[in-house]
Amino acid sequence: MSDGPAIDAGRVIADLRELDRRTGGPDGAQRLCWGEGWRAARSLLGELLAELGLEAERDEAGNLWGSLEGEGGPALAIGSHLDSVPDGGWLDGALGVMAALGVLRAWSEAGVAPPRTLTLVDWADEEGARFGRSLFGSSAFSGTLAVDELRGLRDGDGRPIGDVLSENGVELDRAPRAGGRRGEVAAYVELHIEQGPVLEAEGLRAAAVSGCVGIERHRFRFAGQASHAGTTPMDRRRDAGLAAAEAALRVEEIGRRHGGVSTTGALAFEPGIPTAVAGQAELMVDLRHPEAGELAAMLGDARAEVEAIAARRGCELEMRPVWRIDPIRFDPELVAAARQACTEATGSDRVLTSGALHDAAEVARVLPAAMVFCPSAAGISHAKEEDTFEADLVAGIEAFGLLAHRLVRGGLQPT
Amino acid sequence: MSDGPAIDAGRVIADLRELDRRTGGPDGAQRLCWGEGWRAARSLLGELLAELGLEAERDEAGNLWGSLEGEGGPALAIGSHLDSVPDGGWLDGALGVMAALGVLRAWSEAGVAPPRTLTLVDWADEEGARFGRSLFGSSAFSGTLAVDELRGLRDGDGRPIGDVLSENGVELDRAPRAGGRRGEVAAYVELHIEQGPVLEAEGLRAAAVSGCVGIERHRFRFAGQASHAGTTPMDRRRDAGLAAAEAALRVEEIGRRHGGVSTTGALAFEPGIPTAVAGQAELMVDLRHPEAGELAAMLGDARAEVEAIAARRGCELEMRPVWRIDPIRFDPELVAAARQACTEATGSDRVLTSGALHDAAEVARVLPAAMVFCPSAAGISHAKEEDTFEADLVAGIEAFGLLAHRLVRGGLQPT
Repeated sequence: MSDGPAIDAGRVIADLRELDRRTGGPDGAQRLCWGEGWRAARSLLGELLAELGLEAERDEAGNLWGSLEGEGGPALAIGSHLDSVPDGGWLDGALGVMAALGVLRAWSEAGVAPPRTLTLVDWADEEGARFGRSLFGSSAFSGTLAVDELRGLRDGDGRPIGDVLSENGVELDRAPRAGGRRGEVAAYVELHIEQGPVLEAEGLRAAAVSGCVGIERHRFRFAGQASHAGTTPMDRRRDAGLAAAEAALRVEEIGRRHGGVSTTGALAFEPGIPTAVAGQAELMVDLRHPEAGELAAMLGDARAEVEAIAARRGCELEMRPVWRIDPIRFDPELVAAARQACTEATGSDRVLTSGALHDAAEVARVLPAAMVFCPSAAGISHAKEEDTFEADLVAGIEAFGLLAHRLVRGGLQPT
Repeated sequence: MSDGPAIDAGRVIADLRELDRRTGGPDGAQRLCWGEGWRAARSLLGELLAELGLEAERDEAGNLWGSLEGEGGPALAIGSHLDSVPDGGWLDGALGVMAALGVLRAWSEAGVAPPRTLTLVDWADEEGARFGRSLFGSSAFSGTLAVDELRGLRDGDGRPIGDVLSENGVELDRAPRAGGRRGEVAAYVELHIEQGPVLEAEGLRAAAVSGCVGIERHRFRFAGQASHAGTTPMDRRRDAGLAAAEAALRVEEIGRRHGGVSTTGALAFEPGIPTAVAGQAELMVDLRHPEAGELAAMLGDARAEVEAIAARRGCELEMRPVWRIDPIRFDPELVAAARQACTEATGSDRVLTSGALHDAAEVARVLPAAMVFCPSAAGISHAKEEDTFEADLVAGIEAFGLLAHRLVRGGLQPT
């Protein structure tokens, strides 16, 4: 048992199924952050920690921590998030939390103190599905939560973020104090589903994750002239909708050209009726690339080429940045350790860049961090169909368990 | 005065301004059919008819008629519609009704009975803006109103069409009886704004209208696979949104190729968020052409070419017809008379095909009918910016008055 007590993947999966029983339903997982289902999920986590004699502590940002004291510190933090998108999947986030619990349980049941303190963390509001701000808790921890930018946010029912957080014992202005815990943590690793089709397509059961892509998300607004569908000759139109359609196809081409991904998943026309040429169109452009230089080139190409499209169609173009984040590289030594654990546990030495953001990306700003991915069946996530074959789940959990045990036992070299 | 008493265009415009004062506002005309603003418009029309000693009669479909008895029948009907789209323009429909009133006023004030009875008609619910069924009153008159297809309709507030019509004294099941009045009418002519940019671009003040284009309106629904914007490689996407964008551009090209007009003014993505590839997309395709054969060819091309686009992108395509109408030709002799009147009054012998539908298209199914168009400034209609230069309005009203007087005096040869 040179790597420490082995994780029991079967029990991790049983915990996930119990969570799904309590908080899922015919439409999928209902653990929207700060709501009833999310609180029910945390109650279950509290019960499971209590079974190990551990207490669930909450920090000022609503993150939940549960520590198994080791022979020394600072701690190895492991976890993910229990919150889900509405009608989400049973594994997104929950897998990493329950796998982290499995690591604590392995040491606890072995009856030996780990060489280093092991801390489970359930980050608050990773999804940002209610107020549009993803990675809430982990960015409070890393120090990038700009409270002033959040204060005006309201949920779909018009309720202010401050009120909703207060109901959950979190005072928005005090949330950044969650960063005070940074000194107690040496490193962070997280298990998560891939949420994409690559591992399944390659027949792999796990992969180390080397970082997260950078993202440029911009709103492209085209202003042409709304006019009657029947009375406006083709050569007198300034069709903002067609300008946006052409832009969407060009953005796709730019993604391919640079080896990144580019998405135009939201497009709205005004007036948006069949009998009028669209006078206004708004296209959301999401560009992602692991390399900062390529990402900047993608954005530059999109700007120049879409401006030309708009001009050719007699439309004004306004581009507004919605959100951006630089590519984030995980700690090379932790990535190497994750790769080694995946190879030993599953035979896969694949290293992926994550196209999605994760709490680990926030943590990686201030501490060594890395991730392990499990496959997603058909690449589907954020939907009730989200699933992972049981054998893949077991393999991924075991690879993560091996990684955590190694790091606790001394593979960890805090920078 | 060989053409009968001249219409007073200045008073017609004054009536239009009074209508705008009573039913317009900062957001434009508010005369949505069956509502308060529309009833206020009709009250004004009733007052103006009463000034001429005439009574406003309503038929079973809610059309309003006002007759100036002539030396004989059947009558020449003249008019248009007082209802508007929400936030509409001051002239759309109203111009034709107030010009018709001006024709009646000219004979009435001249104190001579016209050689033929002159009947003003204000058709009910031309716009169909509330229940989606355009040309309600005129199709009841022409016999094409399929009551069974309307019974289930509800407005945006969920109110059934039957209830709303009842409040306005119209019983849906009895509406087709409005056709009983057909025998009393020999022909119909209507003045309307062009709602397009052609006359203004050509520097013309009026045009005769030879008919209305045929329309094919279809819903194209693309089903791909919703997936994560960050984790789905470009070559594993089945992006329904991009399939629809490509289809929209192809439909544009088809319109140009056939010399018609084609519009894709409504496009909706699902889930419709920036961080997901669109799994579903719905594109409304509106094709118009004055020639039935070309219109059919446009639809055939759109079907074949869009199916190929969908297949290439791994999407399913479902096409559902929403609405269609064959091209409608106005009566050649009436069109010739309208052209002659426009030439004499304004120097324009231009003949246009209307790309929009009008009540005259319904009437033309059962009676000789024709129209005169006035220019629309910048081609804008269905918006508060809708306007026509005063000199153009005067010229168009005078051309229409000349046409009506000629037809009343014997230029009318009912077929």
